[in-house]
Amino acid sequence: MRRLHRFALNPFSRKLRLALREKNLDFELVDERPGERREELLHLNPSGEVPVLVEADGTAVADSQAIAEYLEEAYPEPALIGRTPAARAEVRRLAAWFDRKFDREVTARLLEEKILKRIVASGQPDSEAIRLANANLRIHLEYIAWLADRRTWLAGDHFSLADIAAAAHLSVVDYLGDIPWDGHPEAKDWYVRVKSRPSFRPLLADYVPGAPPPRHYADLDF
Amino acid sequence: MRRLHRFALNPFSRKLRLALREKNLDFELVDERPGERREELLHLNPSGEVPVLVEADGTAVADSQAIAEYLEEAYPEPALIGRTPAARAEVRRLAAWFDRKFDREVTARLLEEKILKRIVASGQPDSEAIRLANANLRIHLEYIAWLADRRTWLAGDHFSLADIAAAAHLSVVDYLGDIPWDGHPEAKDWYVRVKSRPSFRPLLADYVPGAPPPRHYADLDF
Repeated sequence: MRRLHRFALNPFSRKLRLALREKNLDFELVDERPGERREELLHLNPSGEVPVLVEADGTAVADSQAIAEYLEEAYPEPALIGRTPAARAEVRRLAAWFDRKFDREVTARLLEEKILKRIVASGQPDSEAIRLANANLRIHLEYIAWLADRRTWLAGDHFSLADIAAAAHLSVVDYLGDIPWDGHPEAKDWYVRVKSRPSFRPLLADYVPGAPPPRHYADLDF
Repeated sequence: MRRLHRFALNPFSRKLRLALREKNLDFELVDERPGERREELLHLNPSGEVPVLVEADGTAVADSQAIAEYLEEAYPEPALIGRTPAARAEVRRLAAWFDRKFDREVTARLLEEKILKRIVASGQPDSEAIRLANANLRIHLEYIAWLADRRTWLAGDHFSLADIAAAAHLSVVDYLGDIPWDGHPEAKDWYVRVKSRPSFRPLLADYVPGAPPPRHYADLDF
């Protein structure tokens, strides 16, 4: 059976979990603990990072974007990265926007302060870092609203890896309880549409022991 | 004419410059100043980041990995991302290793301390941050040596985007004068082979006013 090594609140693991389900591929989850650097994980991926995909024949693929591209090549339908070079470039630009920029400015900071400091290091959350991440979040929500106002899905006419990457990051931030949805109705409308997809449902059942999500998290009518 | 918007010491701009030359594609460079956020650049790429590729017909492609994938799709020969899904996954894993991990642990820190603090902000270099980046660099040089000892090129039998990404980052660090080549002969052997390629030559002529490279930088027999 195909396996996905992951950490429940790692946005890149969530991206792949969504992509696998959108492509109707079966897989088992293998939980990894952040910072633990298990021998087996290091053997599969020398960086020690999740996600890692291991195919039934033992082929291991590491790095979330490399895995997404691999899935698109090995299992082309339904297409998640677009059909023309220009459309594919736009999907990849936006997926990278969320995986790099949004992650650096929002997700990684909130995860570090609210979760990793609790389960890996032993530090107190830095309220200034959290405040800054929340300020950045509002700017990103405006960008999502701007895109959603002009396009059916974030990268154009079709649901794509851009929506998946964005929703993976937002779902982590939403788990941490920090999205001012009421001030950003267009972004919320788009997120409701992604959250209602069957591929999304298993994510809503995930939880990290000792850090339960807020009540609205799994609610489709939030 | 095709244009590449770039900053001379930005490793992602260097990656694309090398990829374009390896594919024998003509282009002009447009210099962008870090942190300036020019209106034209923001119009081409809302993140305000370089590199951005603009084709002769006006098509703009942003994000360095999206541009690399676009070039591979639009101009397949010579292939820089491998030919089978597994080979392509390994090229992408390693390109991401350098573009994310090496960048975060080495290039971005050294650029910040040694260049950006001088031309964008007005701060003093933090010697502890530089010391840490150099310690990380030695671990990455060992990984390059480990790969080069087992393979012809970093991702396997063929020169690829993995070599290009790694060399782009190392060339920036080399410009800043910090690579202990003598302690890492296998990594040096690999770098000499990349540095000797015709695609690499124009990079060696680049310089940033007020921050000249060390004497060995452009030397092929360093």
